Amino acid sequence: MDILILGVDGYLGWPLALHLASQQHRVAGIDCFLRRAWISEVGSHSAIPIYTIEERLQAFKDCFGVELMFRDGNLLDYSFLKAFLAEFQPDTIIHLAEMPSAPYSMIDQAHAAFTQQNNVIGSLNVLWAIKEVCPNAHLIKLGTMGEYGTPNIDIPEGFFEVEFRGRKDRLPFPRQANSFYHWSKVHDSNNTMFACRTWGLRATDIMQGIVFGSHIDEMSGDVRLRTRFDFDQCFGTVINRFICEAVIGHPLTVYGAGGQTRGFLPLQNSIQCLTLATENPSDPGEYRVFNQFDDCYTVEELAAAVQRVGLEMSIEIDIEHYNNPRTEPDSHYYKPDRNHLVELGYQPKHDLETEIRTMLQDLMPHKSRVLEKIDVFVPDIRWEGGRRFSKKVDIKATPV
Amino acid sequence: MDILILGVDGYLGWPLALHLASQQHRVAGIDCFLRRAWISEVGSHSAIPIYTIEERLQAFKDCFGVELMFRDGNLLDYSFLKAFLAEFQPDTIIHLAEMPSAPYSMIDQAHAAFTQQNNVIGSLNVLWAIKEVCPNAHLIKLGTMGEYGTPNIDIPEGFFEVEFRGRKDRLPFPRQANSFYHWSKVHDSNNTMFACRTWGLRATDIMQGIVFGSHIDEMSGDVRLRTRFDFDQCFGTVINRFICEAVIGHPLTVYGAGGQTRGFLPLQNSIQCLTLATENPSDPGEYRVFNQFDDCYTVEELAAAVQRVGLEMSIEIDIEHYNNPRTEPDSHYYKPDRNHLVELGYQPKHDLETEIRTMLQDLMPHKSRVLEKIDVFVPDIRWEGGRRFSKKVDIKATPV
Repeated sequence: MDILILGVDGYLGWPLALHLASQQHRVAGIDCFLRRAWISEVGSHSAIPIYTIEERLQAFKDCFGVELMFRDGNLLDYSFLKAFLAEFQPDTIIHLAEMPSAPYSMIDQAHAAFTQQNNVIGSLNVLWAIKEVCPNAHLIKLGTMGEYGTPNIDIPEGFFEVEFRGRKDRLPFPRQANSFYHWSKVHDSNNTMFACRTWGLRATDIMQGIVFGSHIDEMSGDVRLRTRFDFDQCFGTVINRFICEAVIGHPLTVYGAGGQTRGFLPLQNSIQCLTLATENPSDPGEYRVFNQFDDCYTVEELAAAVQRVGLEMSIEIDIEHYNNPRTEPDSHYYKPDRNHLVELGYQPKHDLETEIRTMLQDLMPHKSRVLEKIDVFVPDIRWEGGRRFSKKVDIKATPV
Repeated sequence: MDILILGVDGYLGWPLALHLASQQHRVAGIDCFLRRAWISEVGSHSAIPIYTIEERLQAFKDCFGVELMFRDGNLLDYSFLKAFLAEFQPDTIIHLAEMPSAPYSMIDQAHAAFTQQNNVIGSLNVLWAIKEVCPNAHLIKLGTMGEYGTPNIDIPEGFFEVEFRGRKDRLPFPRQANSFYHWSKVHDSNNTMFACRTWGLRATDIMQGIVFGSHIDEMSGDVRLRTRFDFDQCFGTVINRFICEAVIGHPLTVYGAGGQTRGFLPLQNSIQCLTLATENPSDPGEYRVFNQFDDCYTVEELAAAVQRVGLEMSIEIDIEHYNNPRTEPDSHYYKPDRNHLVELGYQPKHDLETEIRTMLQDLMPHKSRVLEKIDVFVPDIRWEGGRRFSKKVDIKATPV
């Protein structure tokens, strides 16, 4: 297949390009390096050093014997986007080019407005460009499990059968996101659903859990093929941040009591899922939603797992609770479905502890890079507004 | 109360300013005259001639003996917005400053992107400015009944009790909007709900039906106090457009079979409802939703009502069906609740036929202005993309 990856320079985009190329797909990519800029802006860097796009593209060519057709461009530039779709004529467009951080979107008005404009208008442009240039292309859009929030009922995959006052309908499942970033993803999901219904576009919307992991098999032969690994309060998601804390002996920073439950999956599995969605497109006019995660854990359970694996590797790891900078329930019901990918043949390949072990091994050589930026662990971006460092607190999660 | 109206130069904003002033409230307003620009852009003008803002403000002063504190500014200019909130310190902010047309948002990529950016970022700025400057102010935000779409179950006011797989929760009612404009309003509702939950803001979100009417009592003494009356395919909503068609002898343009059912209310009642919401604010942290309409009609019923009233006034009116430029069901279940305003004491004051009679009388003197723009009635903006004039068709609505 001819596959265009939007956001090909990112944490997921780059490994996905490698994996799809290894499966004999023809890959093109767009990026304008905003992720690299945001990480600088928040005073951090990738724990695992990554290479320039030129070096990455050369390594890609050396490894696969073909070029990745790359363009430096922004999705807000509609004529650029349209021209490239017309040139490449993709069968599949995988949209990973959104600003992905909840805390970043909550910093202040400017960051909230940037997030929603960048994500909503960028994604809207993708819909229009597909409609105008390649209406039969399959759009795979990266949403987030965070769109659903934490309702007190099971979370189906996008839609559910409702009975209300004696009548029935199949309706979109209500979204209750918890940051301007998460809401931008809801807005995008809604626009995409509408474009499928109105224009007959085909889309798969991935409600993805939190991804963790430091590499995939396809990048082991060449250091230039590595993907980024962030650990700051904005872009370092929970397990990845814990790993970086562990390797430098910083206590694991659990927000609040740590009873928050989320769905998680390793990087390798995320790539496998996106590939499955690519190779099994939705029908014209079909808007389908996949909940994409392997298992649900509380933050406290994850910290304990990192501590346990660390102990086996003779790394002593402390766990500290900090005042939660986010406004969110500390403990809650959480039971999302995850059947659609399994029906396509998805079989998780890695387990949590194996992955944690690999990550600790991968990050050990980069201890000094983490130490350089040791200040980025304790969060100071507060949901109620303003910035104030969270303090250590002595609290325990109460089970639901 | 000190009340700030965003979009004070508009169809609703201007009469609302007059009515609130007549109730001894202190009124300020912001506008940047985009509505006037859009109407020119689509090749039309207001059937009832309106005055410049300077003339309006002078008439306001002559009538009420006080000044309306006005600023020419755009909500996308955050520092302007924040500074004016700090200066005026409103108790209530009534946000009517969004681009209100579904067809306009469907013209092409540029119009869709403009609509969502203008509405979503403008409204997001309003939330941030309230949080930063006057967190206790009550935000009344104009949404639309169109956010809900036409589900096959009753439509509650914003939230509903769901039972799913044996568990229960109170959740936001799923939205199924049908244009990029309507979705922009959903996005705004979602952002507002989040801001109330996270920051403790207080908001009333008005899911308003389609408003019709040509004047309110407070403007009868001075022609400079009139409000606009649009009839083009983008900004001329269904009854107002029918009235303009009727006065020049153009057949009423029913889209499709005319079985589409919507909620409607007269201008005077809309102003009464917004005043009730103003004088009965929601609690801090409360995000409440009002479905604001009087009665539901099919488009076919409305056309018949205009025809009937016309006949009584010796105006002969034809009804023609045109290919529906929108992708929407021709007939469907539709049963929205409307209890919250009634609980606050709302009593509708006008009925459909009385209002139609008044409108025909009000518009008769402006027949020549409508004739000047006779080309704007037949729609050519198509939901599937591109522009093509709808053709006359011979179809009838099938009852659900």
